[in-house]
Amino acid sequence: MPAGRGVDEVLASVRDRLDPDSEERAALRATVDELVARTRAAVDSLGLSAEVEHVGSTARGTWVSGDRDIDVFVRFDTDLDRDALERAGLQVGNTILPDGQEEYAEHPYVHGEFDGFEVDLVPCYRVESATEIASAVDRTPFHNDYLDTRIDDDLAGEIRLLKGFLKGIGVYGSDLRTQGYSGYLTELLALVYGSFEAVLEAATGWQPPVVLDPEDHAERRFEDPLVVIDPTDPERNVAAVVNEANVARLIHNARAFLAEPDPEYFFPPARQPLPPEGVREEIRSRRTTPVAVRFDSPDLVDDQLYPQLHRSLDGLVRGLETEGFDVLRSETWADTTAVLFVELAVARLPAVERHGGPPVHVEAHAERFLEAYEDADVYGPFIDGDRYVVERERQTPRAIDFVEDRLLEVALGTHVETALANGDYQVLAGDSILELSEEFGEELAAYFDPTA
Amino acid sequence: MPAGRGVDEVLASVRDRLDPDSEERAALRATVDELVARTRAAVDSLGLSAEVEHVGSTARGTWVSGDRDIDVFVRFDTDLDRDALERAGLQVGNTILPDGQEEYAEHPYVHGEFDGFEVDLVPCYRVESATEIASAVDRTPFHNDYLDTRIDDDLAGEIRLLKGFLKGIGVYGSDLRTQGYSGYLTELLALVYGSFEAVLEAATGWQPPVVLDPEDHAERRFEDPLVVIDPTDPERNVAAVVNEANVARLIHNARAFLAEPDPEYFFPPARQPLPPEGVREEIRSRRTTPVAVRFDSPDLVDDQLYPQLHRSLDGLVRGLETEGFDVLRSETWADTTAVLFVELAVARLPAVERHGGPPVHVEAHAERFLEAYEDADVYGPFIDGDRYVVERERQTPRAIDFVEDRLLEVALGTHVETALANGDYQVLAGDSILELSEEFGEELAAYFDPTA
Repeated sequence: MPAGRGVDEVLASVRDRLDPDSEERAALRATVDELVARTRAAVDSLGLSAEVEHVGSTARGTWVSGDRDIDVFVRFDTDLDRDALERAGLQVGNTILPDGQEEYAEHPYVHGEFDGFEVDLVPCYRVESATEIASAVDRTPFHNDYLDTRIDDDLAGEIRLLKGFLKGIGVYGSDLRTQGYSGYLTELLALVYGSFEAVLEAATGWQPPVVLDPEDHAERRFEDPLVVIDPTDPERNVAAVVNEANVARLIHNARAFLAEPDPEYFFPPARQPLPPEGVREEIRSRRTTPVAVRFDSPDLVDDQLYPQLHRSLDGLVRGLETEGFDVLRSETWADTTAVLFVELAVARLPAVERHGGPPVHVEAHAERFLEAYEDADVYGPFIDGDRYVVERERQTPRAIDFVEDRLLEVALGTHVETALANGDYQVLAGDSILELSEEFGEELAAYFDPTA
Repeated sequence: MPAGRGVDEVLASVRDRLDPDSEERAALRATVDELVARTRAAVDSLGLSAEVEHVGSTARGTWVSGDRDIDVFVRFDTDLDRDALERAGLQVGNTILPDGQEEYAEHPYVHGEFDGFEVDLVPCYRVESATEIASAVDRTPFHNDYLDTRIDDDLAGEIRLLKGFLKGIGVYGSDLRTQGYSGYLTELLALVYGSFEAVLEAATGWQPPVVLDPEDHAERRFEDPLVVIDPTDPERNVAAVVNEANVARLIHNARAFLAEPDPEYFFPPARQPLPPEGVREEIRSRRTTPVAVRFDSPDLVDDQLYPQLHRSLDGLVRGLETEGFDVLRSETWADTTAVLFVELAVARLPAVERHGGPPVHVEAHAERFLEAYEDADVYGPFIDGDRYVVERERQTPRAIDFVEDRLLEVALGTHVETALANGDYQVLAGDSILELSEEFGEELAAYFDPTA
């Protein structure tokens, strides 16, 4: 182990960058006060009854310096019907954030800028307990209540460290692209274990499935690799979205950081995009056959887009493997365009493929098989073990032909399928692969230098 | 079904060619009488006591016209010790067949020509029952006794038909190259079912494992696909050597022949050797990569050689597949030289290969894996699911390099390994594959036109 800096020294320097200073805190406080007051006035002017509540990390003092997100929830009485709630929510939102955009979670809500902060103004129901909620957003105020009394200034600092660490290693965020750790989950982990270091120490020994139940009130079992029972809802796993790779990444990086603490875990240097020449060199040295499908990104929010892309990539990989093409690795990226990228072991397979038939002794199947190949231009039927075999012409010996001609045969995500159905996509292979470096240079850099 | 000839008509014409005529029978009879008389005299002159017995198909009238094999057994008293029996057996054999060769089954025996016939002169013990035998050959006289009383002229004709059929479809012979139906097994099948056609009718419905026990006295179970309990030994499967492909071939050809009887099943046209140009065309049209190892045939009898070659071929195929090379088909042939022939899907693989590591959460294994690849020139370690992965340099990206440089790493038959250990072999690929056509033109013709 090289004699690097100790954990305390590293964390002290990291805290300097993560903790908001008094000026930042004061600015936030002033903005929130103004925002809440205006929202209350807007609710009153509609003649409705609602509680207005500042929630989330800025409400709990657990935000990381530089974060500019303020969440304000408007909790309407439950006798308001859903349509009325949605209308009222948007009216209030549009009043406070006149340049904001309507967004959709389970309810519609308004997102916009206010005083230089990113504000979500979210309507929900004021229910008695988190188990009675009508939609997921109704739960947020309960999370806020639960944490508010339990997070003191010290723990808030530990939470910021953990957030910074999870961000730095790339696993922070419960969106369906990241499939990582939400803010609420991060806070619960720090609360359960007591400190940033204690979370990391614990993670080094995690044996998934890891089950944590802070209130010891779980009312069901989960199959997820990480289970953290919601203290406000005994039937919910707060960590349901965390995939097993992101559990493994936390375990790996916790061990690595504790063995050799370094601020780079929190603030990794930006990756340099890989230029076309670099992509060419990688492909040449790996001697693989990359093939990519590129198309305009479907007009979907990320939480819909990425599951669609992953499903489509899985379908493409399975399709290629069913044809006999080994896929070494595959990835999907999206920006203005979306890309399904597969790296194949070989560009082409033999002109013939082995096709196994039924056992010779199963007469009805045997008869059908023999009839099917009676006049066909195949090798055989011959016998291998107790079965018939033919070697028949392979439909698509070149991988690129499969991707070009048979892409729509594979199981694609519905929206991706629609986007591709009119042939509006390009298949890149050989030198044209290098074009990807313009839009996805950083992704390609990460692809060809993968880390844990 | 095309309106071809009926079974009866076809079998009548086939019988004409299979049944020895009276002249052939008389010639055989005369030769056997002379041979047995001389053998008795030779035994007497040694002052030993032994029964001399003509056994096998020529003794039972079940030989196929043109077969020239005469088996004479000399059954010594059991008080003769084994060395003395072997010495006496060879002495008698060499006296009768002065130009014969000593061969080795379980006892040594003498094989030679007599009057234009191929004669085996085999010493054995005269034991009371087949279950008391000291070696496999001691059993033969019991088989002879059992069948002698049960085979009349009609049944002998049916047996000749069945032999002719099994020969014609390539499954006759219990040697370890063919792994097919012995003469004794053929006779038992005809005896059990009653006629040639009845055997074929039965075979069309066989559901392996098929178990026949003519004397209903089995004293153990067998795992073989075809089990025929020896009427002279309740613990022996007469069909033990028949592999599942040869069971399947009989089923297939029985169905095919009965559906459309044709003398060609008995007398298939000779295959024309495939000339080098034909081999080239096949490879070009299949777009595969054949690679062959050629070496001088080890000096072994076929029953030792072929198991060795098959074991070596299996080892080579497994070795290539472990390296990531798909083997479409493989064969081994032997004559003056022996060949291990593999037909690969591709000639080369990427320069990198995926290497899966341990689950990240298994700390001791994880640590060892990370240490092993810490300073190595690999992609990663990165995380896939709950495991570490690296992509490392592939040791042998070209299949031919594997066969040339790493052949002795694979599990070869012992004698083959010895033969190759000094590097005394050639690896053929590309155009040099065509050289095989000179020695193995017929085998290559069959390889590229495989039938059931």
